[in-house]
Amino acid sequence: MKLASKDILGIKDLSVDEINLILDTAESFIEISTRKIKKVPTLRGKTLVTLFYEPSTRTRTSFEIAAKRLSADTVSISSTTSSVVKGETLIDTARNLEAMNPDIIAMRHSAAGAPHMLSRLIKQSIINAGDGAHEHPTQALLDMMTIKEKKGKIAGIKVAIIGDIAHSRVARSNIYGLTKMGADVTVAGPITMMPRDIDKMGVKVHYHIKEAIKNADIIMMLRIQLERQGDSIFPSLREYSNYYCLNAQNIKLAKDDVLVMHPGPINRGVEIAPDIADGSYSVILDQVTNGVAVRMALLYLLAGGK
Amino acid sequence: MKLASKDILGIKDLSVDEINLILDTAESFIEISTRKIKKVPTLRGKTLVTLFYEPSTRTRTSFEIAAKRLSADTVSISSTTSSVVKGETLIDTARNLEAMNPDIIAMRHSAAGAPHMLSRLIKQSIINAGDGAHEHPTQALLDMMTIKEKKGKIAGIKVAIIGDIAHSRVARSNIYGLTKMGADVTVAGPITMMPRDIDKMGVKVHYHIKEAIKNADIIMMLRIQLERQGDSIFPSLREYSNYYCLNAQNIKLAKDDVLVMHPGPINRGVEIAPDIADGSYSVILDQVTNGVAVRMALLYLLAGGK
Amino acid sequence: MKLASKDILGIKDLSVDEINLILDTAESFIEISTRKIKKVPTLRGKTLVTLFYEPSTRTRTSFEIAAKRLSADTVSISSTTSSVVKGETLIDTARNLEAMNPDIIAMRHSAAGAPHMLSRLIKQSIINAGDGAHEHPTQALLDMMTIKEKKGKIAGIKVAIIGDIAHSRVARSNIYGLTKMGADVTVAGPITMMPRDIDKMGVKVHYHIKEAIKNADIIMMLRIQLERQGDSIFPSLREYSNYYCLNAQNIKLAKDDVLVMHPGPINRGVEIAPDIADGSYSVILDQVTNGVAVRMALLYLLAGGK
Repeated sequence: MKLASKDILGIKDLSVDEINLILDTAESFIEISTRKIKKVPTLRGKTLVTLFYEPSTRTRTSFEIAAKRLSADTVSISSTTSSVVKGETLIDTARNLEAMNPDIIAMRHSAAGAPHMLSRLIKQSIINAGDGAHEHPTQALLDMMTIKEKKGKIAGIKVAIIGDIAHSRVARSNIYGLTKMGADVTVAGPITMMPRDIDKMGVKVHYHIKEAIKNADIIMMLRIQLERQGDSIFPSLREYSNYYCLNAQNIKLAKDDVLVMHPGPINRGVEIAPDIADGSYSVILDQVTNGVAVRMALLYLLAGGK
Repeated sequence: MKLASKDILGIKDLSVDEINLILDTAESFIEISTRKIKKVPTLRGKTLVTLFYEPSTRTRTSFEIAAKRLSADTVSISSTTSSVVKGETLIDTARNLEAMNPDIIAMRHSAAGAPHMLSRLIKQSIINAGDGAHEHPTQALLDMMTIKEKKGKIAGIKVAIIGDIAHSRVARSNIYGLTKMGADVTVAGPITMMPRDIDKMGVKVHYHIKEAIKNADIIMMLRIQLERQGDSIFPSLREYSNYYCLNAQNIKLAKDDVLVMHPGPINRGVEIAPDIADGSYSVILDQVTNGVAVRMALLYLLAGGK
Repeated sequence: MKLASKDILGIKDLSVDEINLILDTAESFIEISTRKIKKVPTLRGKTLVTLFYEPSTRTRTSFEIAAKRLSADTVSISSTTSSVVKGETLIDTARNLEAMNPDIIAMRHSAAGAPHMLSRLIKQSIINAGDGAHEHPTQALLDMMTIKEKKGKIAGIKVAIIGDIAHSRVARSNIYGLTKMGADVTVAGPITMMPRDIDKMGVKVHYHIKEAIKNADIIMMLRIQLERQGDSIFPSLREYSNYYCLNAQNIKLAKDDVLVMHPGPINRGVEIAPDIADGSYSVILDQVTNGVAVRMALLYLLAGGK
């Protein structure tokens, strides 16, 4: 089986079979990262370009490490050092990259749809590493991989997603993926942070964290974007934290074996209490480990794996 | 045959035989970038340092990809993250790099002559990736490669170079190279953008685009440096564009099979109309592809090719 | 013999045997950097992350080149492009890196003790590439390697360290290392730049350069941190230079075969006269060359060398 598209633009476009193919491939790659020599020659002579118009440590690093474990070369372009300074359009930058014949471009951009636009213009595979408030498919894939790894399955699992649902690409991609895979998804957040079309997304909606996490198998906390403070939709941090922070009290409403996830970076004490982030429920760092495996799987499947 | 110098500082220093050697070598490397496994072991164990004191996407990326296709290692230094912040002199930075025994340093600097100064001080090969308004030899080489590829030869080809001739390192390197190779070169631009010594450079001079591109085989548009606006030599963008933008009307004066080149990044609608940049005359992206091959050729010839 | 710790946090923690092991290993690696093919497969499949929260050319580049000469992969993270922008804590950044399974993290941070804190939290080897005014062990190791290389031994060698002793991590690491190895160490600098506990560090203390460098075998000049001007402890540059600059006059007080060292970047004419920095006494660039060898040795010893 192969992926239908040359690109990974969003979870919305992936079939259940494709998601399973990616998760199974990723699972088979987990072992490589635990070897003494953490490298296989699979993608020798292939080139990954990371094209990041927004700052990132973990996602860019995760892609680079994934590529190198498969022996691919990497070239890193970020907006601060690039021709963007000279005012080149995104399309021209992408076409120029295309002409240099890399194999895959992993891109992050503040504009929703930016990778989709490029995917139609250039022949290389594009992996969306986050586009505005739209999708972040590799995050949702590593989240699903983590759920499957820890709970044995995704179908039927009760997942609560808490925070700024409307402006979170992590939430959107996970909602698409988890509902597709048969999970039972509930979201909660302030009314100002709830998407208008949330009714059509196949999830239960609450406005209080306690209702949402009741009996949850998985609680997925979203990062509050501190840089957004001052926006009219944004309550004060203190108020937000009072109502929506996951802590040692409210987590008792969830199942005993609940797992806590977070895409990072964490704002300790804002959306998640430090003892929860670092505690025994947390699988936050397993998510990071799985992120490398998921990105290896995507590079492999897009760049000539068979 | 070998190159006479350990460095590539400018086209002015290269003989016709050396230019032909570089173009022939580059041509033989084109094929590598179209393979499934785009990598040969030729320069394994060699190190390229890219030392960029001005922002660049395409040139730095092109050098990095070229090096990796030949299995060389790359280390990237840009002025924003380097000791430049601490006020180290360029000479000290270079001598420090020398002491770490890389093989080739590709450098870009805003000061004309900076790579020439370093080339006398350090033992490694230096490739000038653009020095102020002086030379940009790899750009001229990839331009000549593109002309030869598309037109079968360079000698006798009518080339019109349009724009800020005085302040363009691309123009200067191309004038040196194209006249050496027997092309028939015409330049055009505002009188404030014409070098004082243009009469001695072996080119025809016009001040209107229409006269310059009449019967041209190749039109090479230069990038207007928007960051220069406000300089006394600089007309308003609108005025510049009125007089010097290449568009669907004036291009009819050129030969039917004219090719349009641009070193990028493009200012769409300023020096070149979007439909021309993206149209059938344009070989702008072929230039980018050839840039990787030319840089592979230079790395190969300087770092131990035989 | 093996290193006792998984980390290199400071010279204070190393035994004489460990220092000798590192210097001997480094010496054996010097030859690799002079080969035509400067690469051995020793650390293939290992990954070095450079995590720099302060700008640096030479140290980061030296680590990267060292890693690549041993065939390790490198991933570079600097504070300007990282999640630091989003306010993530250092601990969370490190734990995330840990979860991606690199082998070694070389880190620089403005806070003394930052690498020590991380070393207790994560399983990977950490190499301190400079922590505040505390330690810079790889610099002291390359300095000791250079002394041993040039003078045949370290024990009994008279070393004068001149400058801002209190705020220099280079001075601190060298004092720990050189005294451990039996050198005869003298320090000199303005009284405002002398550590309070200098009496307990096993060195002679002077406040005039001339007394300190009398009969010295080695003069180690420290970099004046120009960015500190305006601090109350900091005399004017002119005054500092008048009293503490090493120049052609005062150097005559040292032994005839004295060697001059400097960790770089140099402030020419501030702490060192240009003719001394570039003159026959100077081994400043040998230090840089040895820096690559020392870092190769550490990567080798920490990441599975035997």
